Amino acid sequence: MTLSFDKPNPDALSIDSGALTAAIARYAVTSNFAAHPAVVQREAVRAFLNWLGCALGGSQEKAVKLALEVALELGSSSQATVLGDKRRVDVASAAALNCMSSSILAFDDAHLATVTHPSGPVCAAALAFSETQSVSGKEFLNAIVIGIEIQCRLARILVLPPSKFNVGFYVSGLTAPIGVAATIGRLMGLDEQRMNWALGLAASQASGFRATHGTMTAHFRPAHATRSGVIAAKLAALGFTGDDQSLEANKGFLDVYSSGADVSAGMAGLGKEYELLSNSYKPYPCGIVIHPTLDACFELVNQLEGSERVCDATLKVHPLALSLTGIRSPKTPLESHVSLFHWAAAALVRKSAGVAEMQDACINDPQVSELREKIIAVADEQLGSHQAVAEARLSSGRTIRAQVTDVRGSKTKPLTDSELEKKFHSLASTWIPDAHVKQMIGTCRRIEELTDVGAAIRDLVNLA
Amino acid sequence: MTLSFDKPNPDALSIDSGALTAAIARYAVTSNFAAHPAVVQREAVRAFLNWLGCALGGSQEKAVKLALEVALELGSSSQATVLGDKRRVDVASAAALNCMSSSILAFDDAHLATVTHPSGPVCAAALAFSETQSVSGKEFLNAIVIGIEIQCRLARILVLPPSKFNVGFYVSGLTAPIGVAATIGRLMGLDEQRMNWALGLAASQASGFRATHGTMTAHFRPAHATRSGVIAAKLAALGFTGDDQSLEANKGFLDVYSSGADVSAGMAGLGKEYELLSNSYKPYPCGIVIHPTLDACFELVNQLEGSERVCDATLKVHPLALSLTGIRSPKTPLESHVSLFHWAAAALVRKSAGVAEMQDACINDPQVSELREKIIAVADEQLGSHQAVAEARLSSGRTIRAQVTDVRGSKTKPLTDSELEKKFHSLASTWIPDAHVKQMIGTCRRIEELTDVGAAIRDLVNLA
Repeated sequence: MTLSFDKPNPDALSIDSGALTAAIARYAVTSNFAAHPAVVQREAVRAFLNWLGCALGGSQEKAVKLALEVALELGSSSQATVLGDKRRVDVASAAALNCMSSSILAFDDAHLATVTHPSGPVCAAALAFSETQSVSGKEFLNAIVIGIEIQCRLARILVLPPSKFNVGFYVSGLTAPIGVAATIGRLMGLDEQRMNWALGLAASQASGFRATHGTMTAHFRPAHATRSGVIAAKLAALGFTGDDQSLEANKGFLDVYSSGADVSAGMAGLGKEYELLSNSYKPYPCGIVIHPTLDACFELVNQLEGSERVCDATLKVHPLALSLTGIRSPKTPLESHVSLFHWAAAALVRKSAGVAEMQDACINDPQVSELREKIIAVADEQLGSHQAVAEARLSSGRTIRAQVTDVRGSKTKPLTDSELEKKFHSLASTWIPDAHVKQMIGTCRRIEELTDVGAAIRDLVNLA
Repeated sequence: MTLSFDKPNPDALSIDSGALTAAIARYAVTSNFAAHPAVVQREAVRAFLNWLGCALGGSQEKAVKLALEVALELGSSSQATVLGDKRRVDVASAAALNCMSSSILAFDDAHLATVTHPSGPVCAAALAFSETQSVSGKEFLNAIVIGIEIQCRLARILVLPPSKFNVGFYVSGLTAPIGVAATIGRLMGLDEQRMNWALGLAASQASGFRATHGTMTAHFRPAHATRSGVIAAKLAALGFTGDDQSLEANKGFLDVYSSGADVSAGMAGLGKEYELLSNSYKPYPCGIVIHPTLDACFELVNQLEGSERVCDATLKVHPLALSLTGIRSPKTPLESHVSLFHWAAAALVRKSAGVAEMQDACINDPQVSELREKIIAVADEQLGSHQAVAEARLSSGRTIRAQVTDVRGSKTKPLTDSELEKKFHSLASTWIPDAHVKQMIGTCRRIEELTDVGAAIRDLVNLA
């Protein structure tokens, strides 16, 4: 099986660009877990494990608690679990809140080619939904795969050349409602016509721009997208009508958010080739475009000898890294997520880049902030988004250099299962007893065998 | 007082384009009812009366009932009235549902310069909110004026030259969340900082495109925008943070939805000159760009003599009219809203253009459909959006012609108070007893004097 998008797969579902919505609806309604290759089935479990760890880790953050307060004031019913809280809310709010938890530490997954975060919305929505209706592990994972594939395919169509895309748009906010509508629509058993309307209803809620990066609103965006997708599926299930070609029509989704997109290239191989296999689980809690730089900084750290320390550093990065994460002096943990300079300095000074390095103590650490102000970062068009170069002048007078061509966590350098479990543990154990964390990991690993995902997860979460 | 936007008013609030969000936040926080000219105060009452009539008239439509079913399934609390239903829901859902009711017959108001519908979202949101906290009539009307002005100003900035705007975007979906956030934020008493965040949270939920016209999803869009604005205000009130320049920042609202917009021209005179006075109340329940054609058709009807009837007709219209309402053969009442051909034929055959003319009986009337297929419509760049020309060949052999330069319902040819009341009556009396309808109109007329709008309206609606 080839994963390349350059060579169209002759076996793949053929997509006429005039029938994009219909083709995606058909895929969402017909795709089966058993038909996914074993490597995809396994990756879906890894995606969920990574997601749940991030969501548990972020669940105690202030933004999540504020949003929960609003959900509770609106008097939601108690359909589903809010991770990290004893209070339950309606399924749409639970999906939104748990997605926000998984996003708030900037530790969730990322589809590097499109800088989207596909698992958060669909995992959060599927989990909340599985508390309102019995969903088997296989149905659950299948619905997640469907939602991730649709999001990433649409993101490719929007973002990649020949499409002229305004990089100010928050891509996940545009694609996640549609992916979630497919995930929930599939779990609800929608027929093709209603699935089609669900996709259109979701697309009509696509939203978000990047200026909010570094604030709570940045993490409201995926939560809102998740809720939007859930509502779209629920309305369509009742027969709420839409245009049958919402995605491809004149004055439709692609028309307004991109220009000149190549639909057939982006859709080639759907159902045969999986974007999920190009998804990254972040080893560092910050914007994915910072990660190649961090890998390079850790290579520098490995070259330090004796008492040597870094005096200043020069970075060469992909232009998008500076454009999206160019904050020089972050003032809050949320701002640190989009500060290339902060993370490079933190890694070089503290030799670590975990949740502790986004906290105020590290942001205000004089050694970190001194180096942060001195770092020079240059955008280099020659570099890919997964590449970076770092050079440092040391206290010894030596200059050292590192070049990263494949970022850690990516398809070519994936986090191992044990690294993923360690990440889950580090996030969940901030407030959950060790034994329960281990039990959670075990349940996630066995998710394919579960007959009722919602019940199993609820039992575990209630333990916490 | 001049209402022209061509001559900047020297007294007007000066807007530096680098401080657009801050300026709008300041306006929303400081603008007072007493400071609005009497003509504006009166127009706010008319806007609310027109809105409530449309909402009552649309409240029994299937799309609204389906959306209510979803709201009830999510187990909303009983904070606020759903017009036309005994069941109560949470304030955000009530705002959304009542906005959908006011939109679903395509009879709501329209700001012709930008083809937006400013009253629906803010009136629906303010009404629902006024059931959760005591709001006086003056505060209520002031909050509506603020929300309408902000929506229309932002719509001008997005849509009018020199901005390059993709006409596929649903302008109300982009601006209404922001207007509603200002309306509700003002009623909640937000300070400038939190109002600023509310505007940004709302802007980050801007959404919608025009391909869904003619389906239920078209009317979900303003409802979703309304809900988005309410949530934005509620989150911001709790201190949920955002970027302070969400509207004007690089990668912010204006950056992604328009290009080359002239902020200072669009904002000139804010607080002194009122877009509300350029708002139209529709005399016909269909897309506002169809209205000049309908006026022209009724001029033709007035020229008919004896048993003469129209055999065929040729229309000259503003290009946007064909682009937005070019459906030749509508199959449903919702599709009729965007069929220039249907309404011209219905007016010429039935000599009427009311809610009855959007029903299946008229759509399938052989005389109407025969003429509908024969009508020729030509886009004419020379015509304004409020202009149209119609020519008809009659059964007598005569050819007659009509030219409309000012559309009925617009600023220069406004509906009179009594025409507005008649419209309200025709909509509300479809399911509300006559005496109660009259009482409702009376309460709306006295709204400025009310000490508690929510209580007064609730009493009235419960009568029904």
